[in-house]
Amino acid sequence: MNKKQLFEQIKLKKSFLCVGLDPVLENIPQHLMSHEDPIFEFNRQIIEATKDLCVAYKPNTAFYESRGIKGWESLLKTWAHIPKDIFTIADAKRGDIGNTSAMYADAFFNEEKSGMSFDSITVAPYMGKDSVSPFLSYPDKWVILLAATSNEGHNDFQLLETPDGKLYEQVIKVSSTWADSDRLMYVVGATRGAEFANIRRLAPDSFFLVPGVGAQGGSLADVCEFGLNDHCGLLINSSRGIIYAGKGEDFAEKARAEALKLQKEMQEILEKAELV
Amino acid sequence: MNKKQLFEQIKLKKSFLCVGLDPVLENIPQHLMSHEDPIFEFNRQIIEATKDLCVAYKPNTAFYESRGIKGWESLLKTWAHIPKDIFTIADAKRGDIGNTSAMYADAFFNEEKSGMSFDSITVAPYMGKDSVSPFLSYPDKWVILLAATSNEGHNDFQLLETPDGKLYEQVIKVSSTWADSDRLMYVVGATRGAEFANIRRLAPDSFFLVPGVGAQGGSLADVCEFGLNDHCGLLINSSRGIIYAGKGEDFAEKARAEALKLQKEMQEILEKAELV
Repeated sequence: MNKKQLFEQIKLKKSFLCVGLDPVLENIPQHLMSHEDPIFEFNRQIIEATKDLCVAYKPNTAFYESRGIKGWESLLKTWAHIPKDIFTIADAKRGDIGNTSAMYADAFFNEEKSGMSFDSITVAPYMGKDSVSPFLSYPDKWVILLAATSNEGHNDFQLLETPDGKLYEQVIKVSSTWADSDRLMYVVGATRGAEFANIRRLAPDSFFLVPGVGAQGGSLADVCEFGLNDHCGLLINSSRGIIYAGKGEDFAEKARAEALKLQKEMQEILEKAELV
Repeated sequence: MNKKQLFEQIKLKKSFLCVGLDPVLENIPQHLMSHEDPIFEFNRQIIEATKDLCVAYKPNTAFYESRGIKGWESLLKTWAHIPKDIFTIADAKRGDIGNTSAMYADAFFNEEKSGMSFDSITVAPYMGKDSVSPFLSYPDKWVILLAATSNEGHNDFQLLETPDGKLYEQVIKVSSTWADSDRLMYVVGATRGAEFANIRRLAPDSFFLVPGVGAQGGSLADVCEFGLNDHCGLLINSSRGIIYAGKGEDFAEKARAEALKLQKEMQEILEKAELV
């Protein structure tokens, strides 16, 4: 899916919501345990209940890998079940030397080899250009590079001063010479407040994948005030706030209600900004 | 396996060789293709041919993930086949927010959940302390943190000057407050030459996992001159140089010959340093 198509979906659904599919066996409703693959059944029902309200789904691969082969099977089935007009993000935080990143690209972009073909993958920047380039060799696939994350540990290295700005600023500046905003997005945590305006200045045309609204304490209004651009430019992720909204047999309805609440807020924001 | 046990193995085998198990289906000998799982069969024969000459095996997870479920199965079988007195490294370059890194720790350290329990995992430092800590909560398991890598892209960010040294120096200094050298190793590329001495000064007691000898152009003698400490402190990885030493039916013998060559060099170095 390219940038234009993504913006079309945002306008169509009046939403820039990304639903994080990060289920843990211990936390999903009890009645699903009789299914052959409870994790997939959980995701399937979440997808059915939210697919008209969101423009992206983001399974975090760790939640699947933790269950070994069973988990990898659930991930494959989940990817296959997501409607093709919804943007898919393999939240995998990968990155290695060139020939190895090429293997990771096969894992998440090459259906013939691995059984999956996501639209995008999250990548860690530490190893530099040749660790990112292999993912960019697939047409219409995206790299979503970690820039300023929402966790406590972002303080340890991302905010270090370098001769030309903080490390996360350098990551954005340097990586923007590797690919343009049609191929490269950035992870920018919702908890960054005023920094968000600065980050938008550094990458005016890029989409940002924004975790940290809700459970991690970031505000949707703040993010949009500083982050919205003329093609929206934001994918706001919510995982736990949506998928665990209910614990009972009505968990999917509860998830839908939470997603709807966010979609309505987003619609208002898009209308106010005259983007829809 | 703890640090003392690892050094015991090094002394016993007079070797600090790590064999990288990174097989690509297209590059393994043709006659293996009739096996049900050619990748595992390749690894099995490599392990049988080299297990008395090395102290560690390092499967790079990308090479398995790229083949989807089949690949993950080969990885599980490979892990299970490695003798328990050999140090195992899941070269996975993972790292995410705390609750997600905990899932990655389950994937590679928790046999009950995932079917595998490696001794160690490689982790990317960009997201900071809470992305690393969950891996440290397993007794006798190790984090091998990316510090100064051997690829071209190491120039992009790792060498940036910060108020207190280069970024990779900061990674070593800051992370050494999270765990001591009994739990934390660093990836330090063999191609770093004089920097190697500096890195050893920053982490005098730590083990370094050193890729880049051979195929990537680093020299074993240089690395040892600057990197050896009183318990060896080095695990030198060779992947392609060993596993692809031969292309025919004698590939395992050829691999053994290459591993033996490195082991002999290492024995000489250890003897000269009076470590064995």
